[in-house]
This record gives sequence, structure tokens and C-alpha cells, in this order.
Amino acid sequence: MVVMTPEATPAEIEAVVGRLEAAGVHAKVMPGELTTAIGAIGDPEGVREMGLEGLPGVDQVIPISRPYKLASSELSHHSATIVEVDGRRVGGGETFCLIAGPCTVESAEQTRAVARAVADAGASMLRGGAFKPRTSPFSFQGLGHEALDILAEVRAETGLPVVSELTAAEHADRFADTVDVIQVGARNMQNYGLLEVVGKLGKPVLLKRGLSSTLEELLQAADYILKEGNGDVILCERGIRTFDTAMRFTLDLGAVPWLKLHTHLPVIVDPSHASGDRRLVGPLSRAAAAVGADGIIVEVADDPEAALCDGPQQLYARDFPEFAGEIAAHAGLVGRTLA
Amino acid sequence: MVVMTPEATPAEIEAVVGRLEAAGVHAKVMPGELTTAIGAIGDPEGVREMGLEGLPGVDQVIPISRPYKLASSELSHHSATIVEVDGRRVGGGETFCLIAGPCTVESAEQTRAVARAVADAGASMLRGGAFKPRTSPFSFQGLGHEALDILAEVRAETGLPVVSELTAAEHADRFADTVDVIQVGARNMQNYGLLEVVGKLGKPVLLKRGLSSTLEELLQAADYILKEGNGDVILCERGIRTFDTAMRFTLDLGAVPWLKLHTHLPVIVDPSHASGDRRLVGPLSRAAAAVGADGIIVEVADDPEAALCDGPQQLYARDFPEFAGEIAAHAGLVGRTLA
Amino acid sequence: MVVMTPEATPAEIEAVVGRLEAAGVHAKVMPGELTTAIGAIGDPEGVREMGLEGLPGVDQVIPISRPYKLASSELSHHSATIVEVDGRRVGGGETFCLIAGPCTVESAEQTRAVARAVADAGASMLRGGAFKPRTSPFSFQGLGHEALDILAEVRAETGLPVVSELTAAEHADRFADTVDVIQVGARNMQNYGLLEVVGKLGKPVLLKRGLSSTLEELLQAADYILKEGNGDVILCERGIRTFDTAMRFTLDLGAVPWLKLHTHLPVIVDPSHASGDRRLVGPLSRAAAAVGADGIIVEVADDPEAALCDGPQQLYARDFPEFAGEIAAHAGLVGRTLA
Amino acid sequence: MVVMTPEATPAEIEAVVGRLEAAGVHAKVMPGELTTAIGAIGDPEGVREMGLEGLPGVDQVIPISRPYKLASSELSHHSATIVEVDGRRVGGGETFCLIAGPCTVESAEQTRAVARAVADAGASMLRGGAFKPRTSPFSFQGLGHEALDILAEVRAETGLPVVSELTAAEHADRFADTVDVIQVGARNMQNYGLLEVVGKLGKPVLLKRGLSSTLEELLQAADYILKEGNGDVILCERGIRTFDTAMRFTLDLGAVPWLKLHTHLPVIVDPSHASGDRRLVGPLSRAAAAVGADGIIVEVADDPEAALCDGPQQLYARDFPEFAGEIAAHAGLVGRTLA
Repeated sequence: MVVMTPEATPAEIEAVVGRLEAAGVHAKVMPGELTTAIGAIGDPEGVREMGLEGLPGVDQVIPISRPYKLASSELSHHSATIVEVDGRRVGGGETFCLIAGPCTVESAEQTRAVARAVADAGASMLRGGAFKPRTSPFSFQGLGHEALDILAEVRAETGLPVVSELTAAEHADRFADTVDVIQVGARNMQNYGLLEVVGKLGKPVLLKRGLSSTLEELLQAADYILKEGNGDVILCERGIRTFDTAMRFTLDLGAVPWLKLHTHLPVIVDPSHASGDRRLVGPLSRAAAAVGADGIIVEVADDPEAALCDGPQQLYARDFPEFAGEIAAHAGLVGRTLA
Repeated sequence: MVVMTPEATPAEIEAVVGRLEAAGVHAKVMPGELTTAIGAIGDPEGVREMGLEGLPGVDQVIPISRPYKLASSELSHHSATIVEVDGRRVGGGETFCLIAGPCTVESAEQTRAVARAVADAGASMLRGGAFKPRTSPFSFQGLGHEALDILAEVRAETGLPVVSELTAAEHADRFADTVDVIQVGARNMQNYGLLEVVGKLGKPVLLKRGLSSTLEELLQAADYILKEGNGDVILCERGIRTFDTAMRFTLDLGAVPWLKLHTHLPVIVDPSHASGDRRLVGPLSRAAAAVGADGIIVEVADDPEAALCDGPQQLYARDFPEFAGEIAAHAGLVGRTLA
Repeated sequence: MVVMTPEATPAEIEAVVGRLEAAGVHAKVMPGELTTAIGAIGDPEGVREMGLEGLPGVDQVIPISRPYKLASSELSHHSATIVEVDGRRVGGGETFCLIAGPCTVESAEQTRAVARAVADAGASMLRGGAFKPRTSPFSFQGLGHEALDILAEVRAETGLPVVSELTAAEHADRFADTVDVIQVGARNMQNYGLLEVVGKLGKPVLLKRGLSSTLEELLQAADYILKEGNGDVILCERGIRTFDTAMRFTLDLGAVPWLKLHTHLPVIVDPSHASGDRRLVGPLSRAAAAVGADGIIVEVADDPEAALCDGPQQLYARDFPEFAGEIAAHAGLVGRTLA
Repeated sequence: MVVMTPEATPAEIEAVVGRLEAAGVHAKVMPGELTTAIGAIGDPEGVREMGLEGLPGVDQVIPISRPYKLASSELSHHSATIVEVDGRRVGGGETFCLIAGPCTVESAEQTRAVARAVADAGASMLRGGAFKPRTSPFSFQGLGHEALDILAEVRAETGLPVVSELTAAEHADRFADTVDVIQVGARNMQNYGLLEVVGKLGKPVLLKRGLSSTLEELLQAADYILKEGNGDVILCERGIRTFDTAMRFTLDLGAVPWLKLHTHLPVIVDPSHASGDRRLVGPLSRAAAAVGADGIIVEVADDPEAALCDGPQQLYARDFPEFAGEIAAHAGLVGRTLA
């Protein structure tokens, strides 16, 4: 939809129509009381690329069709996508996927202890960071390949599928061999090269929303993975950056029901990174279950005060069974059982 | 805490110390590895006002004590405040206050029909706009005093206490006579004159968070009311303005447990204005109950498509009983019953 | 423009058309490749109020005409408005208005000293706070009426017209008698009662943009004043709230040329409150002149370290002549002389 | 600085002290009126990693030293860094670097025509996109290696050094051979793998601020490059994401003087991407010169309406000489000549 200024001349209106028709797009002129609008019918992507905002007499170009395609429940996939990970079902409305584990894999003992605690309490999968993207180059960056070995070992012992973040294409093959769900972190949500790499690996992907990405951009990022033929994409709301600094990020729980209206992909929530404070993780996890999320991903530590990074947001392993019980109760009220 | 730059000279450090001590504040110099910090002990308000950031050699002045006082659960009031409104208790952790009603009072019939529907389904109070602050001067601004008459009539018929927004000091006395809870809207959260007026009226106040107010600013606005001797303040999270335009505002549900850590005042949530979309109001209301809010305030209409303002966010009265039941169930899981 | 979802049925489309036509709005159906759009021609305000987003099958309602009217250079007033204040012209492209003075009036001596310094350096008007809106009720709130007396006295001595902020309707008459330009502060930009009061006073108004107000909302706030018949409105960009806390606010200098495209009203810039740091005030003031603003309003103090509020952002009076010279040079390059 | 809650017990205070001292950090206890603060002296990075916020009785951990190191003008490099690119000097306060060229390289003819136009008008370098990061996978992504060939050819013809964006590590060697300044785009500012790759290439880097990155994070991203031994980093402010959608992004011109206070690296401005509207590029470029930037990077096209991407923000080549003259005049007022 091209909206002309109130002062646009007939010649300027015709020029826009001419540009559209030259590009094979049908143009429908709608004279209004104050301004004339020109509907452009067909090839929305093409119209967006034409940059008509710069033409004389044009006030605004307003996209009418939504910019994401393959992730859209309206355009391409009417029934909910269910991602299966070693028997756990994520999406579809009947399950709630509880992913838990340490922020960072620090040792086999630590990882094993946490994994056993969360497995006993009914967790669906194990999370654990191997490569950590850090704002400062002088911070601890994770154990890397050694951490992947530990995760593989602990998976064999506990039976829990493993989620870990891939930060660079060069590690992709190693991740494909070791990890069950490949996480793309918030800072890489628009690292399009990486999205195409994980699209080609064919493994389930956990795609986190960027710190300041709109929900439409999140779905467009999912399109990058989906177009490579990989349909197993799980979206994750993890807090956005706003003016308020009381908490680390602002968890946008409204994103969950909004996404449910517009995409067929499963949606989970990360309350640990959003809040940065373990005292808020319980309430926000209950809210995530009540709002209709398909799961949560939370950080748990045996001795969080000794953790090398992100300690204050990690739940204590000893509190995890009660936490899991509360989440399961709220999920139960909306018809879901733990995956 | 005054932090000096790495290059600050001893004379510059001494000048800061001198300024503090001249103002009767004890100064403690802490030389660090890279920079020197100077702790200012006593009279945090006074230090903030001194504007030391502008002195040579000063890098930053970092407030260490939190800026709100009377609203603080740490400084002034350790047990939770319970606001009683005609027998309904708001706050204290055992009740959940369900406030419902039309966006705007349009007629006695409409208001009566909605009030009966929500009363039958267990609502705690009736909301209804008499004076509406509108972004455009050309929009409908509410029925004004006529609306207050209608609300009084419907309160008499249904027994529901009434919540309505006061937009200007000149109407304060009329509100004090007619309305049970006086709402201060988001756009007036920092209208300090109005805050002092409602502080003096001595009626319970529902104080909405500003569109872009931090949580600390919300508590400072509450301080304006509390310092007039009116302790009956209910805080309300109603969505903040962020970069994302998918929804009208971003509902900050993390604000609820954060406020519970830092203030003794009750906290409720307005999911209707935040989302602007009735399809999101149910999920977000369930989440508000699960996250530990003391209540919600939602818009309900008999025939929302005919409503004169904010129609798309209003629940249908016919769906309200099911809605109320779901909310009550989630509130029940956290130990609360409808107020 | 009403955009239907891809799955909207013909009956749903017809229902929207029916609603529009029942309201006397002409509806034009535009079937597209993926979705159908329905243009609503006539009465944009009315369409906005109908809340069609809530109807079945409706995806979005996209306003096509801009929401402000009287402030629009396209709709109501093609030539630039020039506000004359005691011979100084603000707006129109040939002048640059340099408003300077203390943050807060603290005494006659202080105000007189600063006023003389800025008058000597070519300032166009004197600013000075009498009533200060403060985030905390425990901060210094200004001298009030005593400050207005001081400003009147200093105006008589220096000949500088006076700008001061009105914070409550009750002081309006006093301001009308004493002050040449009545400032409405950022926190009151959407205090619609106050806007109508200053609209009726008939004195020039300096309307500051709210901390998180869009430019369209700023123009709608101006509409509140203009519709009372007061055309002398000067807009002021003073920094918006964003995620970055390096500076107090983010000065949105792009707002100036954007406003110049869309409104006939003069636009000035407040770099002092935006940055909160005197070291940034010089560069940002030069940038304001270069970007095409009609003026700036800056804080100057004789001894800023002793000022009771906002000290670190105040320029030193002794540096003001050099500052004014630099600003005048950049303003000169875009064809303006000091007002 | 660890700030305890008002209710923290002596045992909790001692526990914090113990943790700090066990980590080899000196702890200084400062009892205040309301709360106790504990200064941690030495190893700020280590303290940040300890996650003390999670300990009982701790209210906040407030970092006192700034988080960036190598980019800091206070900590590591007192005099301004000057990046030399084939004789053009960027940084140091005496030059203004005018980088101009097409958004995207579309053909040799188009690139050559624009390059000649900007070279004739005094541009310092040529910009041109070869690989374009696009929000949608269905948008045009650039000509890739063919574009690099064209840029090399045009550089040989015009003598203009070339700036182009590297989007993936796999193309790094090719860029090192062809391009004079390697741009890291806003979406990759926290793609740490890529930062290390460009750090190792040893070529000048143009590092753009992320859409929602704080200025401190921008300097930390620069640290990633600097620590690889590559000191030739040029920072670029290109607009941040805020609540306002009137313009594409909000250009944060205050960032320039703020960065000048805190870093030794050169700072340029990109007004084209920030505004997305050619009518704003002139005013914002003048403002960038006046605010003290070391240069600008702007998009220019021969026939912008025909450009395949970002058309409306591109200046017309025929208007470029006048544009360049205006910028040079404002730069001249602050003592700079075109590089």
C-alpha cells in the first residue's frame, strides 16, 4: 500500500502506478478524503524492494502482508509443528518441555550432579553451555570441545537429550554428532550465515529471539532455517532490552500467545537469562506455563555461588523438585503434561 | 558513591571530599587498582542533589541506596499492605482481586448489563471510564459526570465497589463522593500535583505505571501519595513502551515479583490495555495470576464491537464466567481465592 | 485500511464492509494475492474508533492518514508558523533562538548574574525554573511564586523575555501575567487538562516532547493547544528514553528535520536535559544548529557546582560567549542569525 | 562495590567479605546510614564473574570500573588513534572522512558512475555492498564475489580506497586482498568469532554499533578486535532501535562526543541507514560534522529509484557536490578539512 501526501499531484500518482506496473505488479488507485492510496497487488517482497518511499509525492509505503512466510501459520502450515527429540514432543499443545541444566559445563562431576537432579525431578532435556558468547573478550568463554565430551557422557548416563549453543559455523559438524538440539543464541539471531548452516544440519534448532528483535524478525530468522528444509525449529522468548534496568531484560510473555496466533512453530521461554535473578525464575516459569508456552529452559546449579558465570540466576538443584512440581501444576491447568 | 576517573589528581579527590564534608556528609576514600572511589555516608538525597558529576576528575556518581522510601518494604514497612475496599482485600497474598467492567461508561443499560455479568461470575469490583485521556483531542473523551452518576447507580444495584480514573484535580471531590478506588492513569503517573491531591483525599488509589517509567519511578510516584498520609495505594503494571509494535505495549510481568521483593504495596496487572487484543487477555491474565499478582483489571463489554473506544481488547461478557474460572484456578495454585 | 487474514471468509469480509457503511464510511474491497484489504474512505478518526481489529477475520487495521491535524503542514497550514516574542522571531528559517538561563531560580542575585551574562553574549530569551517537577517528593521543588517575582524583576532589568515551566493549572493566571513563554514539560506533554488551559491563555507555549512520546503524539499534543485557538506553539526535542544509560536521555536530532517535513510549527532543542553533562552540551548545540533547529534552550549557571539541582549539565557563564559564538557560526551556515 | 540490603545481618556481610578475600580481592566494609556497602579492590573482571548478587543479604553489585579496556582512552591509550587508509587520515581531529557510494554494487557501470561523481566532489573513500545481510531470506543478498571484482576495478580507476561489509569468516581472505577497510555490520557487532577474524587480518576495520548495543558494549566489541593486535578500528554510530517508528532508527549523535570522552578510536556516523530517508541525510550529515565526528558514510546512487535495495535513503549523485560542500563547511568550523 503506497500512501501519497495530501499534496501529491496526479502526475506523481501516475508515476507510482507506472513503476508498479512496469514491475508486473497490479496497482489499484484509491482516492481518499485527504490522501490517495495505491494498493499494490502481487509480489509483496518485490514492492518492498522497490523503495517507493523515495519517489516525489509518496508519504509512506505500508506493507500489508506480513513479511515472514514459511514460519507463518496463515500462509504455509496450518497445523502446529511438533518437534520430536528422542521421544520428547515439543509443540502441539499437549506437552510442556522442561529443559534444565547448568549455565556452563565446568566439569564432568558438576554436570553429572545437576543432570541427575533434574532428571529425577522430571526434566525433559539437559541444557549446558560449551561455547559461551561473552560481551567482554576477557571473560570466561566456556570449555569448548571438552564440554561437548562431558555432555555426551552425561547424556549416555541419564538418557536426557542435550541442548547446547553453537556460536560459529566451524563447530557445526561436531555439534551435529554430539548435541540433540542446537541452540542459536540471541546475539546470533541475525547471523544469517549461521542460520543457513544449522538449517542444513537437519537437527532440531532452538532459536532465541534477539535482544531487540521484533517478533516478525524472529519469524523471518526462522524462515532462514526453514527454507533449508529443516522444519524442526523451536522459538524461544528470552527477554528484550528496554529502558528499565531493574531486571537484566524485560521478559515479553505476551510474545507467546501472539506467536501462537501467527506461527505453527513451538514456543518456549527462558526466564533465567531474562531476569538474571533466581528469586524471579519461579514466578516467571509459572507464568510461562500459564500463558501457554510449550516449555521453558532454566539454569540449575549444584552450588550456584561457585559457578563461573551467571551464578545469581541459577536455581539450586535442591529446590528443583518443588519448582518442577509447581510448573507442572500450572501446565496441567492448561491441559499439558511434562514432555 | 563517587567514582573518580583513572587520571584524577589527589587535589581533585580532596575537592570532592571537601564538598561532601562541607555538606555534613561523611566521606570515605577508597583507592582502587585503577580508580579511586569515595563513599558518601549519610543523606543520600542530599548527595544526589549536589551534582558532583560535574566536578573535575569525577567519572560517575552512583547512587547506592534506592531512591524510594515510604513504598519500600526494606525501609519503612516490612509487612504487606492490605487495602480494604468495602470488604474486598487487595494485597497480603491470600486473595486475588478481579476488577472488570467496560472501558468507558456509555449508558446506564450497557454499564448495568456488564456489571451484572461480571458480578455473577465473581468479580471483586467494577471498572468504568468516566473521563478518558485520549491521545487525540478529536477522540471521544467520555461522558464525564453523567458517567459517575451511572456508576453510582450500578454500584447500588450490584454491590460492586467502583474503580474509575481521575484525570484532573478539579474533579477530585466529586470522585471522592462517588468512587471507591480512584485510578491515576499511566499518562498521569508523574503528574505530581494530581498525586498529592489523591494523597489528600484519603481514598484507595490505583496507581498505574507510566508507559516508560522504571519500577523505581513507580515507587517514587507512590511516595508522593504515601507522604500525604494515604497508605492505601495499589500499584498496577499495564505494559511499557518498547521497540516492538506487534502488541500495543509490552506487558512486563517480571515487574510483579520484582515489586514483591521491594515494596509492601499490592500489585495488580492490566492485560487489556497492554495487549490491545482480546485474544491475548485470557493467556496474560492466567500468567498474571501465576506470577503472583494480587489481582487484574480487565475490560469487558456486552457488545464489544459496538463500543466507542478500545473495542478490540474487551472480553465478551458471555465468555467472562469461563475466563474468571480459569483465572481463579491459577490463583488457587498459588494459594489465593477471589477477593 | 482494514487487512483481513489469509483465511478470512467472504462473509467476514462482508461484515467489515457492512460495519463501515453503516457508519457512513465508503468501503473499497481490494482482493490481493494472499489477503484482502478493505479501504475505508472518509472519517479516519471514526474508523480508528470503531475497533475493527476485534472482528473475526480481521488481521490489522492500518491508519493511512496521519493522526494529527492542526499541527500538520500538509493538512492545515502550509507556510511556517513564526512565533513572535517581544520582537524575537522563532520559526520561519531566518532566525535562531538562543534561550539560556539557570535550571532553577534560586535567588535574585544568581538569576540576575546569569541573565546579564547571557544577554551580553546575545541570548534571545531567559529561561528559569520556578516550579520544578521532581521524580522524588523529597527533592527540592523550586521557589514557586517567589521565583516568578525574581524573573519579572530580571526581565525588567535585562529586557530578556522569560520562559518558565507551568506544572499545574492553578498557577496559570499568575504565569500569564509574568512569563512570556509558558513551558509545558516533558512529563506533562500528555496532561491534556493542562494543555487545554495553556491553549486558552493565548500566550506562546513551549511544548516539550515526552520522554517516550512518538513524534506523532507530540503533534497530537500540539493539536490540543491549537484547537483552543492558540497558534503560538514551539515544539522542543529534549531527549527520549532508550535502552542506553550512557547519557541521561538520547537526543533525537533526526526529529528536527522530520518535524520540519510534517509540521509548520517551530522546533527547538534542549541539549542540557538530554545529555545531563555540560561537556556534551556544546557539541550537541552545534549539531542542533546544523540540523536546522529554530533554536536551543540551555542551562547556564554562575557557579554550577553550587546549584541546587541539575548542576552537572549547566554551562559556566564565563564560557557562554564562546559557546554562543560557535552556535551562531553553525546557524549562519544554514542561513540564520540569532533572534 | 557490593551493596547489602538494609536488613543484611553481620554474618551475611562477613560471608561476602570471605568470598572476596578467598578470591584474592581486598574487601573494604563501609557501613552507611541505611545499608552497608563493601568495596572490592582489585580484579574487577573477577568480581563481576563471581555472581555475588545471588548471595543472601546482597542487594546489588555495582561495577565501578568501566568494562572496556583496550579501547579506553583512560586506561590504555591517551592520544587519539589515527587510522591511515592509503593516505587518508581518520581520527585525530584535523580531518573529516567522507565515505560515499552505492548501497549495493549492482553493476560495474553503476558503481563506476557513482564513484566518479563522489570522487569529483571530494569524497575520501568509496563504499559499496557486496554481501548484504537481509532480514528476509527472500530478499536480494548482493552480488558477492563479482561485486568485489567490480570494486577492485573501480578503485584502480578512481584511486578511492574501498569500504565493504564482511558478513562471514569464510570470505575474510578475499576481503583482505580486495578491500581497504573491512566493515563489520550492526547485526554482527556481537558476532565474536567474526571480530576475532578481522582482528587477525590486520586491515582497518569499520565497526558499526549494534541496533540495540550500549556504547560500553560497542567499546567491548572493539576490545575483541584490538586484543588481536589490530589497532586500526573506526567506530560508527548508525542509529539505534527505540520506541519511535517515525524514522527507521534513532540516530544517537550524542554518542559521538560521549565516545570522544572515553575512547581514543575514531568515530564516524552513518545517517543513511539511521534515517532511511534521503531528505534527512543532509541535515543529519551536517549535524554529524558539527558534533565533532571524524567522518560520515553515506549512500549515493545515480538513479536511486532504480536501486535494488534501500533506494529511498540514497542521495542523488547530481546533488552530491552541494551536499559535500555543506558538510565541509560545518567540518571547517570545528577545524577539520576533508580527508
